Amino acid sequence: MEYAFSHMVNSVHARDVMLLMKQSSGKNMISFAGGMPNNELFPVKEIDEIYFSLPDNLKKLCFQYGPTSGYPPLVSSLEKYLSQKGLPLQENKVLITTGSLQAISIITQEFVNKGDVILTENPCFVGALTVFETYGAKILGIPMDEQGIRIPALKEMISSLGQKPKFLYLTPNYHNPAGLIYSPERKKALLETLAGTGIILLEDDAYNDLYFEEAEKHLTLPMKAMEAKGVEIVYTGSFSKILGPGFRLGYMLCSPEIFDKAETIKQALDACTSNFNQILANEFMVRGKLAPYLTFLRKEYAERKTLLLTCLKKYMPDGVRWNEPKGGFYVWLTLPEKLLSVDVFKESVKRGVVFVTGRTFDPAGKKDNCLRLAFSNVPKDEIESGVQILAEAISTVMEFQNYTSV
Amino acid sequence: MEYAFSHMVNSVHARDVMLLMKQSSGKNMISFAGGMPNNELFPVKEIDEIYFSLPDNLKKLCFQYGPTSGYPPLVSSLEKYLSQKGLPLQENKVLITTGSLQAISIITQEFVNKGDVILTENPCFVGALTVFETYGAKILGIPMDEQGIRIPALKEMISSLGQKPKFLYLTPNYHNPAGLIYSPERKKALLETLAGTGIILLEDDAYNDLYFEEAEKHLTLPMKAMEAKGVEIVYTGSFSKILGPGFRLGYMLCSPEIFDKAETIKQALDACTSNFNQILANEFMVRGKLAPYLTFLRKEYAERKTLLLTCLKKYMPDGVRWNEPKGGFYVWLTLPEKLLSVDVFKESVKRGVVFVTGRTFDPAGKKDNCLRLAFSNVPKDEIESGVQILAEAISTVMEFQNYTSV
Repeated sequence: MEYAFSHMVNSVHARDVMLLMKQSSGKNMISFAGGMPNNELFPVKEIDEIYFSLPDNLKKLCFQYGPTSGYPPLVSSLEKYLSQKGLPLQENKVLITTGSLQAISIITQEFVNKGDVILTENPCFVGALTVFETYGAKILGIPMDEQGIRIPALKEMISSLGQKPKFLYLTPNYHNPAGLIYSPERKKALLETLAGTGIILLEDDAYNDLYFEEAEKHLTLPMKAMEAKGVEIVYTGSFSKILGPGFRLGYMLCSPEIFDKAETIKQALDACTSNFNQILANEFMVRGKLAPYLTFLRKEYAERKTLLLTCLKKYMPDGVRWNEPKGGFYVWLTLPEKLLSVDVFKESVKRGVVFVTGRTFDPAGKKDNCLRLAFSNVPKDEIESGVQILAEAISTVMEFQNYTSV
Repeated sequence: MEYAFSHMVNSVHARDVMLLMKQSSGKNMISFAGGMPNNELFPVKEIDEIYFSLPDNLKKLCFQYGPTSGYPPLVSSLEKYLSQKGLPLQENKVLITTGSLQAISIITQEFVNKGDVILTENPCFVGALTVFETYGAKILGIPMDEQGIRIPALKEMISSLGQKPKFLYLTPNYHNPAGLIYSPERKKALLETLAGTGIILLEDDAYNDLYFEEAEKHLTLPMKAMEAKGVEIVYTGSFSKILGPGFRLGYMLCSPEIFDKAETIKQALDACTSNFNQILANEFMVRGKLAPYLTFLRKEYAERKTLLLTCLKKYMPDGVRWNEPKGGFYVWLTLPEKLLSVDVFKESVKRGVVFVTGRTFDPAGKKDNCLRLAFSNVPKDEIESGVQILAEAISTVMEFQNYTSV
């Protein structure tokens, strides 16, 4: 439980969740909460093999300081990997970061002063919201539909503001928490909307590799790879979803000008990212272990997703809706009218099931008619009973709602 | 070379050094520059043993997120370790950080706004200076004598300022770069000076375990362990010198109030420190491998120190002075009158020896009559020829100086 919630423990949005968590401590809970891989899915065997066969000189280097910008062989490996995604490596530079959250933190420190505006999706990844809040930004969320952030709402927001937003933060591929992928048309329209505005696009692509169908891989094309004119794009990625969050490895790809300042900020944050973790991750890539591991992961996540959707269909009361994710970790569940996810949570946690409430992901901390189910971290044999319990909790809140509204 | 300089590459103070480094690229240099352990001294065998025998569940946990405040068993191990140093654990909390530089960065973010004053020693650890500069602090250096920072100069500085400094940053034990340890009397007098001023003491104790003589261990008593009344002390430490910088593990010990805000800031910096590295470090402590490794390290560093001092005595021209370190990594060398270390560096690098110039450690980037020799990272069989070459370089600059001043 401790680990399942660690990445959102300090979020101001998650405080209510934490209070409720305390009530459930000690119980054997079924968790749809943690937005991370299940412990059973990590490539332990592969990393063992790498560690056992690491040449002595490389092992010694694991213990040493490295360059602030990153372990050079890993930078090269990433350049190759990102090129294959169509990303423009020639005009941009890679900075290795201590998790991709550090990349978001660095860019925020580079561009945002207290009171500056940052635009985000609503709902939005809570980790990014925590960063933006910590640096005193005014965060304005733009609603989404099933294709991504709503362009008219974005345009209206930009034109209504008295100040230019510093950046727009987006997760176009397999969004956390909304579970959707932006349509190619929406990505294109977004780039056109941003062109010439001077608003930087901060593109978080942590779930890029986690499509379920090979035939849909092309839909994961990053916006930074779409040859946009007149838009500055900072692209971030992570090893947390394709190796393990415990390595704390992420990266950003950005223009040399943004890179220079970012490297100086990183120098003042932690001097450099762990050589130990970078060397293991690089060997994971250069020894060809990433591709087969991704194939395994996609199959595992797709199975969990299918199981979850089947159970939702079987057990959820009328009026509950959800998306069908094409990749990533999440199903975003919309509750029947007037129901709040925080009320569902209170009922659900009593019965032994946890998830993350909708308002956690609202920059304003209010909108609460949805909830996030992460299928990445739940054992397959717990999915059915977990959904059954959640359905009961929702029904109970619905009945209470109907009773009190009579 | 790349690695030797990585931790100061982006320092504004070190830019001149970097330019000169470029001239020397490709050469097989003798380096007194890097303030880090030599690659041959790391406990590779011990960590191998730990990794090979790590239980499966713990290995899986290595790959996962951990709590922002740190991996709980490592927090417990550190509490025990710090208690043994006399530190007040009951009234304080431990926060694990991604290297102790992150601890310095967090405290700076917590307390310092642009234009605020930070007091430091002069000379001062360049990594800390980079952090303070990045957050826009006005850094004022206080001169030191052989017992530590000079109290009259500190008092004068405090009373002459129109604003209260946010904190005083000190490295009382085996100072980087000055190579000295504060006398117990100076530590005590400093605490009395700070009492009631509201100036926080940021005590950096990264070299605490690296005394050369067991009989002198008691001199390493942290100022935070001295039961000072009326002084808020934030204590930082590191695994970089007692395990390896590549693990990026540090910690801070501070009051619960300072801890709470620090934890929130850390959450926005990198969510949590690598579980992988924390688990290995914790096993290193709980399996009793730290104490014998420290015994080994102390002997190795003491040997290098003795060798370096012997060679300095043998080869240095008259007028060059240096301290005799009782622990740590550094000898601080004072040049004959009017000589600048940057000029010596130019001559020295041509001949194949590098070190760090004195002005690198001056908050104002000016004072340059000293230079730092790190004996921690130089192979023992290179020390004599390194010193010989450095002595030649100094003599050459002295001759040129005498020639031009005639």
